[in-house]
Amino acid sequence: MGESGLLEKFAAVCGENNILPGGAAGGKYLRDVLGQTEGRALAVLKPENAAQVSKILKLCARTKTPAVPQGGNTGYRGGCIPDKSGRAVVVSMENMRGAPKICGGEMRAAAGCVLADLQDAAAAAGFLFPLNLGAKESCQIGGNLAANAGGLNFLRYGGARELCAGLDAVLPNGEIINLPSAPRKNNSGYDLKNLLIGGEGTLGIITAAALKLFPPPKIRAAAFAAAENIERALELFYLCQEKTGGALECCEVMPRFLYALVQKHFPEIPPPFSSPPPLAVLVEAADAGVELREALAEALKKKIITDAALPVSEKQRRLFWQFRENAPEATRREGKWQKTDVCLPLEHLADFCAAARKFFAAEDSDGAHILEFGHLGDGNLHLSARPKGRAPEAEPAAAEKLQTGIWELVLEFGGAFSAEHGIGRTHAGALRRYKNPAAYAAMRAVKSALDPENIMNPGVMFLD
Amino acid sequence: MGESGLLEKFAAVCGENNILPGGAAGGKYLRDVLGQTEGRALAVLKPENAAQVSKILKLCARTKTPAVPQGGNTGYRGGCIPDKSGRAVVVSMENMRGAPKICGGEMRAAAGCVLADLQDAAAAAGFLFPLNLGAKESCQIGGNLAANAGGLNFLRYGGARELCAGLDAVLPNGEIINLPSAPRKNNSGYDLKNLLIGGEGTLGIITAAALKLFPPPKIRAAAFAAAENIERALELFYLCQEKTGGALECCEVMPRFLYALVQKHFPEIPPPFSSPPPLAVLVEAADAGVELREALAEALKKKIITDAALPVSEKQRRLFWQFRENAPEATRREGKWQKTDVCLPLEHLADFCAAARKFFAAEDSDGAHILEFGHLGDGNLHLSARPKGRAPEAEPAAAEKLQTGIWELVLEFGGAFSAEHGIGRTHAGALRRYKNPAAYAAMRAVKSALDPENIMNPGVMFLD
Repeated sequence: MGESGLLEKFAAVCGENNILPGGAAGGKYLRDVLGQTEGRALAVLKPENAAQVSKILKLCARTKTPAVPQGGNTGYRGGCIPDKSGRAVVVSMENMRGAPKICGGEMRAAAGCVLADLQDAAAAAGFLFPLNLGAKESCQIGGNLAANAGGLNFLRYGGARELCAGLDAVLPNGEIINLPSAPRKNNSGYDLKNLLIGGEGTLGIITAAALKLFPPPKIRAAAFAAAENIERALELFYLCQEKTGGALECCEVMPRFLYALVQKHFPEIPPPFSSPPPLAVLVEAADAGVELREALAEALKKKIITDAALPVSEKQRRLFWQFRENAPEATRREGKWQKTDVCLPLEHLADFCAAARKFFAAEDSDGAHILEFGHLGDGNLHLSARPKGRAPEAEPAAAEKLQTGIWELVLEFGGAFSAEHGIGRTHAGALRRYKNPAAYAAMRAVKSALDPENIMNPGVMFLD
Repeated sequence: MGESGLLEKFAAVCGENNILPGGAAGGKYLRDVLGQTEGRALAVLKPENAAQVSKILKLCARTKTPAVPQGGNTGYRGGCIPDKSGRAVVVSMENMRGAPKICGGEMRAAAGCVLADLQDAAAAAGFLFPLNLGAKESCQIGGNLAANAGGLNFLRYGGARELCAGLDAVLPNGEIINLPSAPRKNNSGYDLKNLLIGGEGTLGIITAAALKLFPPPKIRAAAFAAAENIERALELFYLCQEKTGGALECCEVMPRFLYALVQKHFPEIPPPFSSPPPLAVLVEAADAGVELREALAEALKKKIITDAALPVSEKQRRLFWQFRENAPEATRREGKWQKTDVCLPLEHLADFCAAARKFFAAEDSDGAHILEFGHLGDGNLHLSARPKGRAPEAEPAAAEKLQTGIWELVLEFGGAFSAEHGIGRTHAGALRRYKNPAAYAAMRAVKSALDPENIMNPGVMFLD
């Protein structure tokens, strides 16, 4: 079948208004947010319901057309960008939104709902939906689930997997499956839900989800603390968890250089401390303000931290968060960095960071800027480096070497080379290299079993 | 290869002392605890470590010998009993126990550890391991995970799946995979852990697990309440959850007839009320004794319940539990019952129960004893029935008809025909009949992909 014949068939299943020929699609659909991955597509399809998604995938299977599911396109791994062949259709979920339904302590949402809208809908009904990412204003819940997103509140509530009670999906063969949240106890068969969550669109397309809601904290207490190093920051973390009875929702770290970058690029945000501390730690607890203050006082007394800043108002608490949330943008304005998304067992985190600094020092004779930045409480650092002597983009081979070196250190310390950003296209080679071979083979077998024609997001998760 | 040649080879991989020829194995290994499923085996193997399990499964794959993993053999569905061909080896995990290791808020245990021993080990270290089943004195954690056991504390802590942070397993091809609990954030590939949990030994053998521990409640407050019917009992449940801030660990129901049976067969246990109420509801809350008493007082005032009995001592609290925990044995002593393990969305539970009573009344002109018994807070009832006119064992066809009728009612009300007891051998036909066909086909595809020779627990989960 020729290209135009195919386009006609796809138009017939999702409607003339819901198809955009690939040539007219542009970067919104064909380039990732970091500008690292770019592809081409036969068309972008925007189905309005699960029945259309089913028809699309059946047509894809029949015509061996690759299908690339896409949510808000906010991922960092190219997981929703087609390859450069131009053969694939992008299946954008943006038309599948509509108002979520809240009932029985759950929120039922279509895959295309934007995360921030779901947070707002939950809040308006008196609940908390705790999934929270920097990209919340544009990412979609279907993509969050496919990628098993982590984010800022993972510490207390878990990630997308833990927050999903049930889902509907279309399998690669176009069959619709419903894996409902109710009844809560259901031991009738394999756990297909958790295969689709974190499956990165390689095993099917999630079309709707039932999400868990929580009682919102009556009050959130935050504080910035100044610590000398990762060991001390971790001591603070443990102390706060002990004193608050595990009420921390976040424990984030920003090293001195990054703190200064935020000051430089966002001078309008008042910094929590007048001069950048070696490590600034942002902690936030739900309904445990008194206990958090006690923990900080004890930490100061025991010299675990050298300073603490408590917001005097809700407005200042929000400014603290702005200071933290603008950190990634501040690094971007400074140029390219070698970025990672690694997770270490907490007991090995400090040793890993020391080893990583040593490794960078050995790699770059001028010394390197190294940012131990991220979700300390989860052991999840977005460790970033920027050699002083040269920009990493100038020498891709050197950048590759840095990346590989860090990953191998991570594995040596019992960590994960991908914590919350997933595999996508960019890390498929690393997955093949680093995953336990038996587990990798089992994954491949599951993929081939559910998608024998390899039409679902080929090139993502597996190099193929 | 002849039978004796095979036996020699198996003896070589797991040691002469760890093999029992099938003819000498007896009911402990070859008959289920309900006496419903009985099989034969070439041998019972008792490996001592994962390396031996790996060798066993490699030999099984090579010789196409079915392997039937077995824990404490306490399941109700024949899921660890071989078929009658005598070709299979039972792989008993009883030699894989040893003391669990508690570290970093987790307990690491070999698959053969007995649940009660793990509860005790956690308690001795100042933690709570909340998985709790009637069979705790003999069931093993590997079996609990394979079956995704639910039990008494599911309401607050979830089941085996939710309580497992990581595991080690041997796949059907004999490859060992480690899916560690640390680091906590790890998005490098498909969720194989949750496939093995609830996989009922059809996708591999779990050899060890990292289990989540919790702070133990400082005090547990229990009460028996008397309610007129399921609607009122549910109102009490919601009220208690609201007043205690969700601190209920259990909410169990026993109907009048069952209450009387416990009185009859266990006269030494003092009953909570002098005369059996229509429905006795046992609630227990962690660290919320005052709030629970307030909830009960309000429930009495609002006539949601007609009576409440609070234990005056820890000893009496335990007697309350003995009264509840002896209910299954009391029914057994009364003869055979048509038993089920169904779960309904809470909002449909009362309507379902009414419909079930109607169905039984229509089936049995003499009227039937019907027990709405079980974990009310989870929506999980072990609804049992015993026609007055005839014993169910006397007419298997009639029993089958009752079973099927109840399941179809369950599905009509949006419930699950297997809540916590799983599929095993006995319910494989029901799974094929009632599971969404696309989901069933996906399960089959996963099974064939990971176990192409169908050597792992054949006949369990799937009919062939």
